[in-house]
Amino acid sequence: MQLSHAMSLLDAARSKAEHLGVRVSISIVDAAAWPMAFIRMDGCPLGAIEVSHKKARTAVLFQMDSADFATIAHPDGAAYSLENTNGGLTSFGGGVVLMGPDGTMLGAIGVSGASTEDDIAIARAATRPAG
Amino acid sequence: MQLSHAMSLLDAARSKAEHLGVRVSISIVDAAAWPMAFIRMDGCPLGAIEVSHKKARTAVLFQMDSADFATIAHPDGAAYSLENTNGGLTSFGGGVVLMGPDGTMLGAIGVSGASTEDDIAIARAATRPAG
Amino acid sequence: MQLSHAMSLLDAARSKAEHLGVRVSISIVDAAAWPMAFIRMDGCPLGAIEVSHKKARTAVLFQMDSADFATIAHPDGAAYSLENTNGGLTSFGGGVVLMGPDGTMLGAIGVSGASTEDDIAIARAATRPAG
Amino acid sequence: MQLSHAMSLLDAARSKAEHLGVRVSISIVDAAAWPMAFIRMDGCPLGAIEVSHKKARTAVLFQMDSADFATIAHPDGAAYSLENTNGGLTSFGGGVVLMGPDGTMLGAIGVSGASTEDDIAIARAATRPAG
Repeated sequence: MQLSHAMSLLDAARSKAEHLGVRVSISIVDAAAWPMAFIRMDGCPLGAIEVSHKKARTAVLFQMDSADFATIAHPDGAAYSLENTNGGLTSFGGGVVLMGPDGTMLGAIGVSGASTEDDIAIARAATRPAG
Repeated sequence: MQLSHAMSLLDAARSKAEHLGVRVSISIVDAAAWPMAFIRMDGCPLGAIEVSHKKARTAVLFQMDSADFATIAHPDGAAYSLENTNGGLTSFGGGVVLMGPDGTMLGAIGVSGASTEDDIAIARAATRPAG
Repeated sequence: MQLSHAMSLLDAARSKAEHLGVRVSISIVDAAAWPMAFIRMDGCPLGAIEVSHKKARTAVLFQMDSADFATIAHPDGAAYSLENTNGGLTSFGGGVVLMGPDGTMLGAIGVSGASTEDDIAIARAATRPAG
Repeated sequence: MQLSHAMSLLDAARSKAEHLGVRVSISIVDAAAWPMAFIRMDGCPLGAIEVSHKKARTAVLFQMDSADFATIAHPDGAAYSLENTNGGLTSFGGGVVLMGPDGTMLGAIGVSGASTEDDIAIARAATRPAG
């Protein structure tokens, strides 16, 4: 994935957030979990900065959306304590894997600052553009 | 335990993983929890690297398989919060203690990247060679 | 400082980097040292990601460019070990303070990935737009 | 780079170490600095385990051998404090970049446990096989 792609994802996510009337942080990481691009919208809670990054990181490291990771990395899940590895991961939604046309993982987007439902909707708006 | 022994454990674990058609990270640590050998199979999720090490570390530090550790180091267990000591430990299966012929602990193997069931089977394939 | 301002600084810095033919990471932080926006240009060394952030953070935390911070936070400077505070700071150039028209500090920009000379030139191209 | 390649590098490095009569730790990381394979030779000092990893990581993150990194990331160098970024890097030799036939960086090898001179010789024996 190149920076131009990451920037278009940021733009799409920000548009969705504005449409929903919420203020979020948005992080894009590559397939090895290294940061590519990031923005914090005006008024976004400061705590959401790191969360947006950890959501994207979680999605890449385990090749699944953070909402799915949450079902296993939880006291009631099959792999409780997994959320405490790799510097701390995120067991709720808002981190979404980016897949290429050929099914390879390109990276991930992480969104934080709104409700989890809205965070997920914003991430998906970026990763699943209207056809 | 010597490196040659650790390498043979890695080979046995990798063979089992290939037989199961899964891609895992495999860590061998000595009886003092220091890393001896490690491999990450092609295609293994990146998050599994650290997890394989923590599983082996957990097994050595408490002299029990991580699946047994999970029953006590859990919000519902007798020693909740134990999993948050020693830099973070692993409360699910895939870390297996290596015992010598005389019953002394030689170290441990940790496997991560597949289902917990498969991770355990891979670790046991290495530690309990066919007779 | 608002996100729109931070994005224009990113654009100006990226243009300068492209003009110089170098590939850098660029971080913008606000006056409280919290990240506002970030990009990593294609081909930038991965180690520069964190460095760009630490340069911007250093500039804000001590209200001076990181090149000036370097003269005091150094084994030969007046405040050796200062560079080891606040999670680790940066004792070389590329972090530049952003000042408002009224002389208040708005935040900082950090650039890393090229030579220190180029990193500084890129940061200044963003903070001192042609009149 | 695939695991089979990393394993052949480990073997070549170990052979060189045995030839020199020294005991080292050897780490291979991919182009994004994620661990691929690791061994600790019998008798290697325990402190060398992490050092071998940090040498390889340093080489990848700044796309240069750690011996070259040392000339800039040093109190007398152009970028003092750079060695304290990215979780701590290594300002002496023994981390060597692995380049592919087409000039792209494949990853790096890090060797620690002997003299720096020997560590470098071992890393180079792996990365520059006899023709």
